[in-house]
Amino acid sequence: MIGVIGSGNPEKKDDPLAREVGSLLAARGAVLVCGGLSGIMEAACNGCFSSGGQTVGILPGERKDEANPYIVHAIPTGMGIGRNVLVVRASDAVIAFSGGYGTMSEIALALNMGKPVVDLGGWDTQGTLKARTAAQAVSMALEGSSGNGSDFPR
Amino acid sequence: MIGVIGSGNPEKKDDPLAREVGSLLAARGAVLVCGGLSGIMEAACNGCFSSGGQTVGILPGERKDEANPYIVHAIPTGMGIGRNVLVVRASDAVIAFSGGYGTMSEIALALNMGKPVVDLGGWDTQGTLKARTAAQAVSMALEGSSGNGSDFPR
Amino acid sequence: MIGVIGSGNPEKKDDPLAREVGSLLAARGAVLVCGGLSGIMEAACNGCFSSGGQTVGILPGERKDEANPYIVHAIPTGMGIGRNVLVVRASDAVIAFSGGYGTMSEIALALNMGKPVVDLGGWDTQGTLKARTAAQAVSMALEGSSGNGSDFPR
Amino acid sequence: MIGVIGSGNPEKKDDPLAREVGSLLAARGAVLVCGGLSGIMEAACNGCFSSGGQTVGILPGERKDEANPYIVHAIPTGMGIGRNVLVVRASDAVIAFSGGYGTMSEIALALNMGKPVVDLGGWDTQGTLKARTAAQAVSMALEGSSGNGSDFPR
Repeated sequence: MIGVIGSGNPEKKDDPLAREVGSLLAARGAVLVCGGLSGIMEAACNGCFSSGGQTVGILPGERKDEANPYIVHAIPTGMGIGRNVLVVRASDAVIAFSGGYGTMSEIALALNMGKPVVDLGGWDTQGTLKARTAAQAVSMALEGSSGNGSDFPR
Repeated sequence: MIGVIGSGNPEKKDDPLAREVGSLLAARGAVLVCGGLSGIMEAACNGCFSSGGQTVGILPGERKDEANPYIVHAIPTGMGIGRNVLVVRASDAVIAFSGGYGTMSEIALALNMGKPVVDLGGWDTQGTLKARTAAQAVSMALEGSSGNGSDFPR
Repeated sequence: MIGVIGSGNPEKKDDPLAREVGSLLAARGAVLVCGGLSGIMEAACNGCFSSGGQTVGILPGERKDEANPYIVHAIPTGMGIGRNVLVVRASDAVIAFSGGYGTMSEIALALNMGKPVVDLGGWDTQGTLKARTAAQAVSMALEGSSGNGSDFPR
Repeated sequence: MIGVIGSGNPEKKDDPLAREVGSLLAARGAVLVCGGLSGIMEAACNGCFSSGGQTVGILPGERKDEANPYIVHAIPTGMGIGRNVLVVRASDAVIAFSGGYGTMSEIALALNMGKPVVDLGGWDTQGTLKARTAAQAVSMALEGSSGNGSDFPR
């Protein structure tokens, strides 16, 4: 189960890189977990769902209908931004796109929990794995290995 | 998404009624959500999974490996008994088996949220719908209707 | 730290029994913890605060201004009814007044956690300690002993 | 209610700057809220408590006895690192010392919620207010104003 985190800005709901990540996760048989809303989350879910994959959206509100249209399993939490902890907890690794303070909190929480964070968003945070392409990011997340073949530095 | 709640006592992990409920949920295309552990949860998940259905386990601990073997999507929360709120929130209706104070808390939370609670466990709680068979329980949960055909009293 | 749970119905915000419980908690040096809203919570906080005691309100929303006027320390959670778990977790014992499904969930959660539940609300729940007066309830909660002098049956 | 966040490393439990911040918060009548453990949290609570102030510790575990000795009101959550959201939610502003990913998550969550974050730890995060002394940090947190007298830029 791989987390995809990034801006919820609806303008990013067709982001090609996020769609490609989602599509590749589906192809690799991974389940995509995210915060369930629009923006990067929706783009990645669209890619995953359209390629036959499963998606889980852990929502901030109390209702399922705030989920983007590509969420297969909607989990409303009623915890607001507090659901970020649950998104990260459910992920075996996370792929981070650019975003705001919410995304930053998820990166920090994932690193706090010792989970691999693959950075596709140009974050300037120690401890993340830098990826340049969707394929590289998905491989790094799934295999827990850095791009140059070395062991993953947990 | 239908919640199944009840005792986590491992002695109940083969409970035939819970297995039948799980199997019928799969046959009706519903996703089974539960607390992810043993006992009634495991019996129901076994029935659902064995009939080709999907199961979601919202776990109390921080790790996925506490999930029973029939959980398809494990969501560890690290919230302990606090995850009961999330099990109920994710459910469109819940089917309650006999259980302890944890199950009682889930019944109360579901009723507080205005969700149908179908009682297969002999609970003496106002506001629940009484069912006698697995088929009746699943129908009542899915259709939100009482056994005698009247509208569900939301 | 003693929890006071019961109906949030504003009509109960001057309930004399809840005020007396609050006042006695203050006199005994206990901190009153509750869900922070109106009804029984407000009556008990009024009694406690007016007698010089400390009160903690663990609120469902994201803002402190939903707290009743007698809350000294407002803790907004943004978790909705999920904050019930935190009210109970913070309490060394709870005193239960009459209420709805929310109160019922707190009774069940407290019993699940093995905490003394003193019943002043006529709840028909196994495992609670029955009290008839405010003084008796406060003594039972603070001393963890039943009214007739026997050891508290943890 | 002012949050103090920073490393929980016990080696920092006598950190002079954190003690001074705690002492000044007490002198200004503020309540100090924190994660309740050791390190920077303990140093600040020591300063606050020793100066007659009130402290609230929102703990990760299920038990109060993990609180540092200067916590007046211990709120165990059983939510692990998820309690960080609650620490920030309870704070009207936060003062950040140096720390790890947990502290970073709290900074991000506070900025996400639009709360002033006063930085005494050399964090390289946009949106925080930079302070150089304890007195300056406490003033900035309490008055919501930058050090040079301009309005606080919400």
